[in-house]
Amino acid sequence: MQRLLIFHPQQGLRKNLPSGFQPRQSEEFTWLDLVQPAPAELDLLTDLFHFHPLAVEDCRHPHYRPGIAQYDEYAFLTLRCVKAGQRSLTTALNVFLGPRYIVTVHQEELEFVTKLWRQYSQDPQLFQKGTDFILYSLLEPLTETFFTFFDRTEGKIEYLEEEVFRRPTRQILNQVFTLRRQAIKLRKILGAQRDILNLLAYPEFKLVKPENRVFFLDIYNEMLRLIDQVETFHDLASSTLEIYLSLTSNRLNEIMKVLTVITTIMMPLTLIAGIYGMNFRYMPELEWRYGYFTVLGVMAMLAGVMLFFFRRKGWF
Amino acid sequence: MQRLLIFHPQQGLRKNLPSGFQPRQSEEFTWLDLVQPAPAELDLLTDLFHFHPLAVEDCRHPHYRPGIAQYDEYAFLTLRCVKAGQRSLTTALNVFLGPRYIVTVHQEELEFVTKLWRQYSQDPQLFQKGTDFILYSLLEPLTETFFTFFDRTEGKIEYLEEEVFRRPTRQILNQVFTLRRQAIKLRKILGAQRDILNLLAYPEFKLVKPENRVFFLDIYNEMLRLIDQVETFHDLASSTLEIYLSLTSNRLNEIMKVLTVITTIMMPLTLIAGIYGMNFRYMPELEWRYGYFTVLGVMAMLAGVMLFFFRRKGWF
Amino acid sequence: MQRLLIFHPQQGLRKNLPSGFQPRQSEEFTWLDLVQPAPAELDLLTDLFHFHPLAVEDCRHPHYRPGIAQYDEYAFLTLRCVKAGQRSLTTALNVFLGPRYIVTVHQEELEFVTKLWRQYSQDPQLFQKGTDFILYSLLEPLTETFFTFFDRTEGKIEYLEEEVFRRPTRQILNQVFTLRRQAIKLRKILGAQRDILNLLAYPEFKLVKPENRVFFLDIYNEMLRLIDQVETFHDLASSTLEIYLSLTSNRLNEIMKVLTVITTIMMPLTLIAGIYGMNFRYMPELEWRYGYFTVLGVMAMLAGVMLFFFRRKGWF
Amino acid sequence: MQRLLIFHPQQGLRKNLPSGFQPRQSEEFTWLDLVQPAPAELDLLTDLFHFHPLAVEDCRHPHYRPGIAQYDEYAFLTLRCVKAGQRSLTTALNVFLGPRYIVTVHQEELEFVTKLWRQYSQDPQLFQKGTDFILYSLLEPLTETFFTFFDRTEGKIEYLEEEVFRRPTRQILNQVFTLRRQAIKLRKILGAQRDILNLLAYPEFKLVKPENRVFFLDIYNEMLRLIDQVETFHDLASSTLEIYLSLTSNRLNEIMKVLTVITTIMMPLTLIAGIYGMNFRYMPELEWRYGYFTVLGVMAMLAGVMLFFFRRKGWF
Amino acid sequence: MQRLLIFHPQQGLRKNLPSGFQPRQSEEFTWLDLVQPAPAELDLLTDLFHFHPLAVEDCRHPHYRPGIAQYDEYAFLTLRCVKAGQRSLTTALNVFLGPRYIVTVHQEELEFVTKLWRQYSQDPQLFQKGTDFILYSLLEPLTETFFTFFDRTEGKIEYLEEEVFRRPTRQILNQVFTLRRQAIKLRKILGAQRDILNLLAYPEFKLVKPENRVFFLDIYNEMLRLIDQVETFHDLASSTLEIYLSLTSNRLNEIMKVLTVITTIMMPLTLIAGIYGMNFRYMPELEWRYGYFTVLGVMAMLAGVMLFFFRRKGWF
Repeated sequence: MQRLLIFHPQQGLRKNLPSGFQPRQSEEFTWLDLVQPAPAELDLLTDLFHFHPLAVEDCRHPHYRPGIAQYDEYAFLTLRCVKAGQRSLTTALNVFLGPRYIVTVHQEELEFVTKLWRQYSQDPQLFQKGTDFILYSLLEPLTETFFTFFDRTEGKIEYLEEEVFRRPTRQILNQVFTLRRQAIKLRKILGAQRDILNLLAYPEFKLVKPENRVFFLDIYNEMLRLIDQVETFHDLASSTLEIYLSLTSNRLNEIMKVLTVITTIMMPLTLIAGIYGMNFRYMPELEWRYGYFTVLGVMAMLAGVMLFFFRRKGWF
Repeated sequence: MQRLLIFHPQQGLRKNLPSGFQPRQSEEFTWLDLVQPAPAELDLLTDLFHFHPLAVEDCRHPHYRPGIAQYDEYAFLTLRCVKAGQRSLTTALNVFLGPRYIVTVHQEELEFVTKLWRQYSQDPQLFQKGTDFILYSLLEPLTETFFTFFDRTEGKIEYLEEEVFRRPTRQILNQVFTLRRQAIKLRKILGAQRDILNLLAYPEFKLVKPENRVFFLDIYNEMLRLIDQVETFHDLASSTLEIYLSLTSNRLNEIMKVLTVITTIMMPLTLIAGIYGMNFRYMPELEWRYGYFTVLGVMAMLAGVMLFFFRRKGWF
Repeated sequence: MQRLLIFHPQQGLRKNLPSGFQPRQSEEFTWLDLVQPAPAELDLLTDLFHFHPLAVEDCRHPHYRPGIAQYDEYAFLTLRCVKAGQRSLTTALNVFLGPRYIVTVHQEELEFVTKLWRQYSQDPQLFQKGTDFILYSLLEPLTETFFTFFDRTEGKIEYLEEEVFRRPTRQILNQVFTLRRQAIKLRKILGAQRDILNLLAYPEFKLVKPENRVFFLDIYNEMLRLIDQVETFHDLASSTLEIYLSLTSNRLNEIMKVLTVITTIMMPLTLIAGIYGMNFRYMPELEWRYGYFTVLGVMAMLAGVMLFFFRRKGWF
Repeated sequence: MQRLLIFHPQQGLRKNLPSGFQPRQSEEFTWLDLVQPAPAELDLLTDLFHFHPLAVEDCRHPHYRPGIAQYDEYAFLTLRCVKAGQRSLTTALNVFLGPRYIVTVHQEELEFVTKLWRQYSQDPQLFQKGTDFILYSLLEPLTETFFTFFDRTEGKIEYLEEEVFRRPTRQILNQVFTLRRQAIKLRKILGAQRDILNLLAYPEFKLVKPENRVFFLDIYNEMLRLIDQVETFHDLASSTLEIYLSLTSNRLNEIMKVLTVITTIMMPLTLIAGIYGMNFRYMPELEWRYGYFTVLGVMAMLAGVMLFFFRRKGWF
Repeated sequence: MQRLLIFHPQQGLRKNLPSGFQPRQSEEFTWLDLVQPAPAELDLLTDLFHFHPLAVEDCRHPHYRPGIAQYDEYAFLTLRCVKAGQRSLTTALNVFLGPRYIVTVHQEELEFVTKLWRQYSQDPQLFQKGTDFILYSLLEPLTETFFTFFDRTEGKIEYLEEEVFRRPTRQILNQVFTLRRQAIKLRKILGAQRDILNLLAYPEFKLVKPENRVFFLDIYNEMLRLIDQVETFHDLASSTLEIYLSLTSNRLNEIMKVLTVITTIMMPLTLIAGIYGMNFRYMPELEWRYGYFTVLGVMAMLAGVMLFFFRRKGWF
């Protein structure tokens, strides 16, 4: 699907492509948004905008790792936002940023792009703030998707930590591992996006106007915070695993103590019973009047002594 | 709650907001302190001081990660101090530092701010040292909260280390994990605050007067010390966990040895008793005069040999 | 085997070595490709091209670690690509890059070199893009070999992760270890190749023409992506190992619980049976009418109580 | 305790404080050494030397982390040396270094300071080498205390490594943990002292004369060596722990094998004996002439087969 | 032992010390080699060459950590090579490098020094390449000693990895730990030597002639390769340990399964036998005609059911 906005301060907004229109030479502001673009729509990038073939190729198969490439007068960005409910957790947003034009390409419908789109359709004067401000307006909610995801993660980790203490099961374990795997992958993405924003906020980066730089610095700082968070999550998930292992090992000890106490008490008694079950002709005790009760008493005493001994050693 | 101090070397101290007062244009020194501010009070930051909306927004929902943002002629700091007895362990202090005005915003009552406030109310000549000196006077006790917390932590770690050697329980384990989790989080906060102080102590940072720079350098060094401490705590907590695991594993071996010794001694004896408990018609030993006593003797001997053997292998 | 291409814009392509030909002084473009070169063929590097003996020596025994060495007017590169189905996983490609000549040396037949070779044979005008473009055209499929390998690895890791959860066997374990070992080794190779590409994409590197620099930057970015991937693989493989250990430890607990439950229930019953198997003359219970059934009932009850107790403790 | 040396090339040495003496304005060389100073003695630092209050405060409660602070014309150092037989392992040495005066403050009697003191008392011409040379003469034996300590540590680690292989006990474990804890703490101290010496050996550091710089570079290199050593110790201690855990886990396997072999052999035999101990009226085997001996033979054969089977599986 | 070469382009080679000879002022090339020097021989360094006392002291007790110290016109290097069959694995080579003189000191006979010595004795014209070329000619085989050692290590690691999978014993474990300990120590040495070679290959380092710099760069690159290798070895050794632990833990599970299966099957059968071994007067089953065979049948069935159940759970 393709959506186009062309804005001229005097002539106002147009939504269709005028014939012979050259966005890169034009004085007008252009925003082209391609959602799940058909191959023919992607050809616009080459035919209309004359973007570098390597960059256009990247739009077709967006990289997993965010990045920025600078060409003569425009820059090409690969960004990623969290898009939950999916196998891959994140989805890519490709952006071509020029002085008076911006092109956004994404393989999935993104709510925050649609929302911004409506806003610009209704209030086209916003274009006067520049294409870099459009980029900022996209980056802001894109960063927000991470914060939203991490808020949920935070609650989940605390839940898992308590749960692991209460009852360490394989399901809990599985969730902790999933969480850590996500942290490993998001850490890489956020690290790359931090580097991109560092570059965007640089005075040397000409496509961002000086008065807008502070906005990108703000996003840069939010990236730093996100990285802090994701690292903390990774550490906490690893820590939860260690808790799990410590508790399992602790629990094994408890189980083995029970087993050992039972075995140690029962075996000698069984032996005694076995001895007096032997069929020797001459076993004087068997003839005793109170032999049976004596043996029972001895057994009880033996068990008592052993229980006392284990208790003192703190085994139960 | 809002508290205001306006000081003029000649005209002395005022505590109420004069109408038409422009703190950022005024020659007077201004200190505005907002404690658990109502939304209307936070509007002062925009209406009276014309601070950047992004910064004011941060006061409403202070970030977890300390940071500094520099605007035209003022700087905005997010700091954190330890405030024990709470879920989140730390609480935020936001500061706007201008050449002749300082605004502090915090969501919780902070004792050291109140104390400094009283001091400045009673001795307003202190304002002449500059707003940067007020910032230093806040940073000093703020750093102290970490030192106080770490002093307690130090004792706790030593206690836990000894305890884990004496009797490794789940409660001890839980405390060690809590402590390490705190270390992970405080490390991030202190790292960010060190970076802030590095910036404040820079000659290029104009809001700090050259003669006051040494004070910020001192706080910077204290931050380095705190980071050293918190890293050492993390390492020691991890080390305590390893002690726990090593001891548990050692203890498991001890338990299993007991179990194995008991089983190995008792089972053959029980077998012998079982054999002479069989009801075969022709079992010559059963008829022997001293068969019973011979068997008892053999049993005792067997047990003795096995005990000797285990003793030599060092199993008990 | 040796393959030679000499191209002159006017005179076209030659494939044999003209006598007295001095490739380093000539105006013509020269590409010499040595596949599994015999010692005599390697002597060409010294006799014909007068390359530095240290570099020629490296062609004989290519280093494991990719590297670049710059000589007066040419550079010597050691690169590595994945060549599966082999003991060492990767194979070396040595390149001498001069302003108008390029020499490639490899100990194994490489498909992508052969392919490029045919392309240049058929369309020799490609030489006009420069020898640096030949290097790029080699680097592109060389990088691709890693991507292809990693695509397979990605599927394998996901398979192993699921498998380890389903049924942790030694074979799975072995595969995880192999995978991590490969990640350790490929990480080193890719790190070195990233450094090489960083150098090639530098404006100071004169052998790459400014208009071609963007291609090397693209490969550089792909190297960064590969490193990200290989690090993620290493982390995921380590994580899979931890899953394995956690599950094994979990499973051990399950096994021990079964053992303990069985032992704890059976031993006291066996003791009771043993007691009533004793041959004392005076054992009143033995004479009771319903003694036998009472004992059976007591046994069943005892077993029931213990089962109930273990169930409540959540042991099965 | 306070010890004072004032030296003038012409007028020689004095050991008492002349009235009205201004050490910081004087042409004479001054060395003031304060050992376990009383509060009144520490006031000399403020009253006589006019040192910065923050520095004097640090002398009262020396920091754990070595550091350096530069003031107008003097520098303040906090150093640490190993002082064994104590709870904290190290003790602090504070030094004020001026162009013609040096003040050393320490809370414990340090042998190497006393020794240097005697040397300077007897041969006051040494003062002509400058106060920086006094600092070097203190740093030299201070570094030596670490080397001496590490020499002992080295032997200890090797002993522990062998011991852990021979007989892993809790006492050994405890010593390894103590050693690693010391390594963690000393690493931090040495890292900070390396940074200090890096600064002292800098050409920009004016208090060290160019001809003496090489001495500080030498100490700097010794610090690097100490850091290498302490890191190696940490790694070796951690490695010893892993040996311990591996061996414990190995030993557990051995124990469990013994238990399993015994149980597996004894239980079926006991069952057979139990079967022929049943009191059924019709059990044909019981009437056989050689029934008893047949059963004994079957038992022996069964045990033999199982032993053979375990042997082949390599269990003992 | 001391060996001396003095070479003059016109006057040729001398091997004895001419009286009044001043090597540091002379136009001649001098190479002094001290092998296991007696104290008197070391005095030559001070008396004849006037080297700095700190450097001469280092020759007596060479440091473990390689290093370089630059003096007015000469440099002092401490290098290390692998010298197998020894307790400490490496041995030191001290070198004083001057513009026209070189002094090598080593406490052990080194084959490659002796070989180079013979070469220079026979072909003294080699001196014309400069003393820096002598240093290179020493560094080349010195680096080779590491490569030779690592080649053997590589085979050993692969052997251990396979062995650990086949049969994890304590001996294997011991070898892996030894190997990792060596890697820890060699990593430190190689890191320091890389830094030294980085310095030697610097254009600012005047003692190396520009035309020889490429040789030192080559050694520098070999050091990088060695560091890569030693780090890979460390990682692989650690990985082998993890394999060991995983397998041990896996094996423990196997053992415990055998124990549990045996116990679970045998105990109920033994209980049944015990029950019918009781001596109650009224036990109806005992009177049954086929009671005995029924019980045997029940036992067999019970065992069969349990075996089937364990098989389905995949326990054997």
